[in-house]
Amino acid sequence: MSQLRRDPVRGHWSIIAPNRRRRPDDHGEHGPIERRGGGPCPFCPGNEEHTPPEVDAVRPNLTTANAPGWLVRIVPNRYPALLAGAPGVAVVGARAGLQETLPGVGSHEIVIATPDHGRRASHFSVDQWDTLLAACQFRMGQLLQDPRVKYVVLFHNHGERAGASREHEHLQLMGIPMTPELIRQEAGRARAYRERRHRCLYCDVLESELAERSRLVLCDEAFVSYAPFASRMPYELCVLPRAHRASFLHLSHRDRCLLAAHMRELLQRLERLFGDLPYNWVLHSLPDTDADADVFHWHLELLPRLSKQAGFEWGTGGFINGTPPEEAAASLRAAITST
Amino acid sequence: MSQLRRDPVRGHWSIIAPNRRRRPDDHGEHGPIERRGGGPCPFCPGNEEHTPPEVDAVRPNLTTANAPGWLVRIVPNRYPALLAGAPGVAVVGARAGLQETLPGVGSHEIVIATPDHGRRASHFSVDQWDTLLAACQFRMGQLLQDPRVKYVVLFHNHGERAGASREHEHLQLMGIPMTPELIRQEAGRARAYRERRHRCLYCDVLESELAERSRLVLCDEAFVSYAPFASRMPYELCVLPRAHRASFLHLSHRDRCLLAAHMRELLQRLERLFGDLPYNWVLHSLPDTDADADVFHWHLELLPRLSKQAGFEWGTGGFINGTPPEEAAASLRAAITST
Repeated sequence: MSQLRRDPVRGHWSIIAPNRRRRPDDHGEHGPIERRGGGPCPFCPGNEEHTPPEVDAVRPNLTTANAPGWLVRIVPNRYPALLAGAPGVAVVGARAGLQETLPGVGSHEIVIATPDHGRRASHFSVDQWDTLLAACQFRMGQLLQDPRVKYVVLFHNHGERAGASREHEHLQLMGIPMTPELIRQEAGRARAYRERRHRCLYCDVLESELAERSRLVLCDEAFVSYAPFASRMPYELCVLPRAHRASFLHLSHRDRCLLAAHMRELLQRLERLFGDLPYNWVLHSLPDTDADADVFHWHLELLPRLSKQAGFEWGTGGFINGTPPEEAAASLRAAITST
Repeated sequence: MSQLRRDPVRGHWSIIAPNRRRRPDDHGEHGPIERRGGGPCPFCPGNEEHTPPEVDAVRPNLTTANAPGWLVRIVPNRYPALLAGAPGVAVVGARAGLQETLPGVGSHEIVIATPDHGRRASHFSVDQWDTLLAACQFRMGQLLQDPRVKYVVLFHNHGERAGASREHEHLQLMGIPMTPELIRQEAGRARAYRERRHRCLYCDVLESELAERSRLVLCDEAFVSYAPFASRMPYELCVLPRAHRASFLHLSHRDRCLLAAHMRELLQRLERLFGDLPYNWVLHSLPDTDADADVFHWHLELLPRLSKQAGFEWGTGGFINGTPPEEAAASLRAAITST
């Protein structure tokens, strides 16, 4: 069983998860990502029995569960960082001297993003992106039904350098028993700003980026993406919805289609500049029930992993970024793709 | 010229440093670390003219500057993240709307840790480790003479995966115009603890680790190293001095020799388990003039880079660690080396 532990000096939480060790990129191996065609891929149609039974799937022709015929398939992670625990039993934190803990109760699921092993997310159709986002939206809502789940983390690791342990495109959904520190910090700053200025911090960032233009990458009716002023790494992007809402869960069908096209276009432009690059993207979205939901404004962070984070970053919590965001944005504005 | 920028939403600082782009691991390249013997290494004796002129060096026989005969050599980084700026001109922050900045004034130096290209830090003699630590200690003191320098970051990237751009062992020293966020957070927690308990947080962690024993790795008269309770990654270690002092600068000769032997032993044990592994180590030490110097307790963090940090870590500020620190400590206690 996993355990969440809080560091008494630094304040961060770590999930100590012993059963994560046997997965493909186990730290004892250092091995490269498994290669295309090397052994059966558990995420490919026909190999459904190589994953735990699916918890949800998009099956247009009502095909049978755990058989081919799906567009997106959600399965429990075989090496979960968190486990469901006994149903209905509350998650109770403990404190012994300097040691603060929470039981590792929650969920850790894989969203298999496409049936096509070789198709990268940048080459998904807008429809496939929309199907994927809709499946995540629905499943997030389900996970949040469990009162022990305080937050759902949705993220995508693409490429070995970005932490992907399998090549077949997949996202991860984790229901966790506390609100992550970074989200709490963001919400805290948004709360302080609201109290001082009576306005939304994110809405003001949006307005200021739209006025200044130099860091803008892509704008449509519902979303604006830009290279953040203090970008942590080259070509970092933030996708911010124009509408002020705390949660991604309420995104309308129309806006979700726009987001689908937006994500596809950003990834295509990055590929145009750097080829098949490693990246992470992460959703920041607060549940409506969160005490800070009134000040939060959901968004998506896209982090190309073109540079390495080293002693400076680990030791200080600061970043050294060799590419001014204004330059990154200009290159991405110029990298128009023909779709 | 670089610029320090603060993110309005997340609160972190980034150094936007355009002249970092031309260094060997430039993000456009993705290339591996330069190989042993491939072209002249600017850090090797005889190639001194390939670096900027040295700012300090340990030269036992009073050999000429910028010529062979040194044991440790400190030179400005050819691709500095920060520059000295006009002498005596104060560093003044600016704020325009949501944008908070500081000029990129400071220093960024390379500490060439050995004249021997092929010798890893784990195989330095205790004397070489002591010479290296003494050179860093002295240079840190010099950099802190500049009133614009509020903090000196000392770190070591070993191996390509840990961000090293050259194989020849080298440390980095950066004089920066503000106290890094992580250090400020640690000091804030230590301050709060002091106010509540009238004791030092780090001294209490030390006492609790010594009592519990399960996470201890190595103890001598002056230092205790242990795997932190909420370790962020497998085999993370903290080296904590028994004596309560804010700054590494006042380390006595005797204690520095003990630290030298301690570091060598830790790296040798890690190598015994994992071979030549990538790692970072970072010093956390506050200048005496810092407002939080009374509550801080200097220490050293050693971070083996055996696992990858991915979307979860970037998106939440939390960590997933598959190796319980109690197991890591037990393996390291058993991995006794014969020196």
